[in-house]
Amino acid sequence: MPGYAADKDKVLTRLRRIEGQVRGLQRMVDEDQYCIDVLTQISAATKALQAVALALLDDHLAHCVADAVAAGGPEAGAKLAEASAAIERLVRS
Amino acid sequence: MPGYAADKDKVLTRLRRIEGQVRGLQRMVDEDQYCIDVLTQISAATKALQAVALALLDDHLAHCVADAVAAGGPEAGAKLAEASAAIERLVRS
Amino acid sequence: MPGYAADKDKVLTRLRRIEGQVRGLQRMVDEDQYCIDVLTQISAATKALQAVALALLDDHLAHCVADAVAAGGPEAGAKLAEASAAIERLVRS
Amino acid sequence: MPGYAADKDKVLTRLRRIEGQVRGLQRMVDEDQYCIDVLTQISAATKALQAVALALLDDHLAHCVADAVAAGGPEAGAKLAEASAAIERLVRS
Repeated sequence: MPGYAADKDKVLTRLRRIEGQVRGLQRMVDEDQYCIDVLTQISAATKALQAVALALLDDHLAHCVADAVAAGGPEAGAKLAEASAAIERLVRS
Repeated sequence: MPGYAADKDKVLTRLRRIEGQVRGLQRMVDEDQYCIDVLTQISAATKALQAVALALLDDHLAHCVADAVAAGGPEAGAKLAEASAAIERLVRS
Repeated sequence: MPGYAADKDKVLTRLRRIEGQVRGLQRMVDEDQYCIDVLTQISAATKALQAVALALLDDHLAHCVADAVAAGGPEAGAKLAEASAAIERLVRS
Repeated sequence: MPGYAADKDKVLTRLRRIEGQVRGLQRMVDEDQYCIDVLTQISAATKALQAVALALLDDHLAHCVADAVAAGGPEAGAKLAEASAAIERLVRS
């Protein structure tokens, strides 16, 4: 089970809403709407994606990483390094 | 006509690809795929959205803002202030 | 004269304050202060640097880029492309 | 002892280098150097600060958070929530 198992429905709802935002962006561009209005909606979709990422990361730390750390052994260090790399990608994107 | 008129097809193609990425994310979550793999794909979708925003902003500066500046008058200052606010939203998102 | 000529003193004051924030960070680390408190102060310094960058960019668009666009010729396109590249670096950093 | 205890000298060296970068920025502005060159150096300093933050966060997860998780009890959840909030501030800054 992934770390987000308990939040799966909520995550799916948020992703479906983001899909709707991206389809809305296509409609705006198709209708030649003003650049700045399109950019404002892109910023909103980007923030929504980041919010999903932060929620998944919380779940990952609280379950997958915490379980590995509680179990101890080499897996703990591997999980921590993997989480750090994911955080770095998030901060850089 | 918006600043992105000449790039409209290319922008729509990129947004459709991003819509596909967000649907792919839903499939990953629905299939209980590993948190870190989902996060990696979210980072990719976020970067793709930012790249569209940067392309639209380039077009906006090179057309809408440049035209207003070349025409002169108070509209020029208004367009510059509006572009600065959009850049700030992008940097902060 | 650079685009920020009229704001030069204000920019210098902000940069000196950021230098103080970075020296404060060294003091915190030297005194073994708690990781999270150090991270909070790093976020504040990062935001302050970004705010200076956004202010410089505003000035650059409103003066250097606008002047080149008003003058017309190949220099206008070069200044726009250069500004776009700087915006991209800002968004990515 | 903070999570970065073993890396303290390295962190201090990086922060001193960033202080030098911020002083270099003041010199550039004082000498009226070109906006885009100043912006490039601000992006470099911002990235350097983020890199220190990511290093501190790694240490924090691998020591403070991992120790609390290994010890179990309510402190573990508190440390995880605190780390998540710090990650969110980093992603948003």
